[in-house]
Amino acid sequence: MFESFVTNSKKQLEATMTATLQQLPDVNPRHQAALDYSLAAGGKRIRPLLVLATATLFTSDLKAAMIPAMAMEFIHTYSLIHDDLPAMDNDDYRRGRLTSHKQFDEATAILAGDGLLTLAFEQLATAPHLSETARIKLIRLFAYAAGPSGMISGQQSDIEAETRAVSLPELAQIHSQKTGALLQASVCAGAIVGGANMSEYQLLENFATKIGIAFQIQDDILDVIGDATKMGKQTGMDAQLNKSTYTSLLTLAGAQQQLTAYTEAAYALLEQLPYDTAYLEALTAMIAEREA
Amino acid sequence: MFESFVTNSKKQLEATMTATLQQLPDVNPRHQAALDYSLAAGGKRIRPLLVLATATLFTSDLKAAMIPAMAMEFIHTYSLIHDDLPAMDNDDYRRGRLTSHKQFDEATAILAGDGLLTLAFEQLATAPHLSETARIKLIRLFAYAAGPSGMISGQQSDIEAETRAVSLPELAQIHSQKTGALLQASVCAGAIVGGANMSEYQLLENFATKIGIAFQIQDDILDVIGDATKMGKQTGMDAQLNKSTYTSLLTLAGAQQQLTAYTEAAYALLEQLPYDTAYLEALTAMIAEREA
Repeated sequence: MFESFVTNSKKQLEATMTATLQQLPDVNPRHQAALDYSLAAGGKRIRPLLVLATATLFTSDLKAAMIPAMAMEFIHTYSLIHDDLPAMDNDDYRRGRLTSHKQFDEATAILAGDGLLTLAFEQLATAPHLSETARIKLIRLFAYAAGPSGMISGQQSDIEAETRAVSLPELAQIHSQKTGALLQASVCAGAIVGGANMSEYQLLENFATKIGIAFQIQDDILDVIGDATKMGKQTGMDAQLNKSTYTSLLTLAGAQQQLTAYTEAAYALLEQLPYDTAYLEALTAMIAEREA
Repeated sequence: MFESFVTNSKKQLEATMTATLQQLPDVNPRHQAALDYSLAAGGKRIRPLLVLATATLFTSDLKAAMIPAMAMEFIHTYSLIHDDLPAMDNDDYRRGRLTSHKQFDEATAILAGDGLLTLAFEQLATAPHLSETARIKLIRLFAYAAGPSGMISGQQSDIEAETRAVSLPELAQIHSQKTGALLQASVCAGAIVGGANMSEYQLLENFATKIGIAFQIQDDILDVIGDATKMGKQTGMDAQLNKSTYTSLLTLAGAQQQLTAYTEAAYALLEQLPYDTAYLEALTAMIAEREA
């Protein structure tokens, strides 16, 4: 059931992304290749799945949710391309493939990221099956989450935190901006598309905060005990760089305990909703138990 | 008259930008400083002036046009920050000041550009004094102009054109995307805010195409005969890099002739409008006769 939801959703998402890229007029061929390359890298598609799974609480018709799901994946992919640049994390590989600036060159990678971010908003503005009010809400939501008050400041703070010790509250703040904001916006987007009422929206927003933290704790745990082959990248980098993480601040056992606590809190919130939340529960488990 | 329009508009624009940046919650201080730095660099503010001057054809109340004007300046400023990066044009100075990556560092500059682009859409989505329909139109317009079908592909093509000879039609296509798209979107934004009818919109769009080309021809002319002190950057770079330009393809005299032809065409279009187009005429002259 959940497996077929994931398989079908990813298939539809990928078909929508391909169709969207193919119909863009006047695109420079190298830029087009760079967009295709990064979007085809696959991955778990957790953010679009959160958009779609949240929308399924309210409707079985996912047509209206597909463009917001895609726009979120565009923004996430852009953030990875820029994050991997030599001036940022300087990663040569992601998901076992060359990063954009290694496959192409730095200028092409910077522009690919810029192009995807811009395209996300263009697609939201023209999304079919959504009222203008819903489109405006989604643009505002995504721009706030991805902008100076969200992901961008998280990214800047994360870079600065590499060269100094960070307290647990600071670490939580950095991650709530760097990764939490987009995860939360994904769930909220599904709630907007589905037409959630105010109390449902707030509950889902709260749920999204919990899974955002769980996501980052598991990220830090994987850097300690993860399988580098499965992850398609080196592990042990945080310790090598002497970076403050949930595992360095809480110990591995302490981090695992916190992961369980946040996951349980997320499940408890879902139980308060009068809907079938099986997909969101399964996505929560996917986030907390993922191996890559 | 035009001078006081420019002075007042720039003052209001700068006050709006300052207020917008100051009220952003949870922004990393270094990111905030990088945003402030690049926006305070001044410049001619041609794009926001085009938004405002076009809106004045239809209304004397410029409140509704100010946020679109600012959003356009955010997008233009982001494009300059990324354009100046070592992987792109590798410029140390712009307008006589250090570029963002020299003043701060490359990661901070990349993020400052990303932040400004994202903030532009957030501001358009929440712009007061504009209907949701107008906001959606503006977001679509700006995202299309700045995205893969516009500025981004122009930028990618421009980089590729540095290493090979380019024909005049190719050069025109590159510049229509790289600089023409945003200039055109600026004029069209003023038309949307002002509520232009279809034929007025098309005429203004056509006018904007002409001044976009004039802008680039003068850019190439200035690189040959401009005063490096006034421009705040080195001249003669195109010839040194053996880059195809309007002056290299048409000779200096030929480029000046084309500049005059496009400027005249722009004036002729304005004459067809039943409005006082003095500000747009003056901006056309400013673009064609600028010294920097």
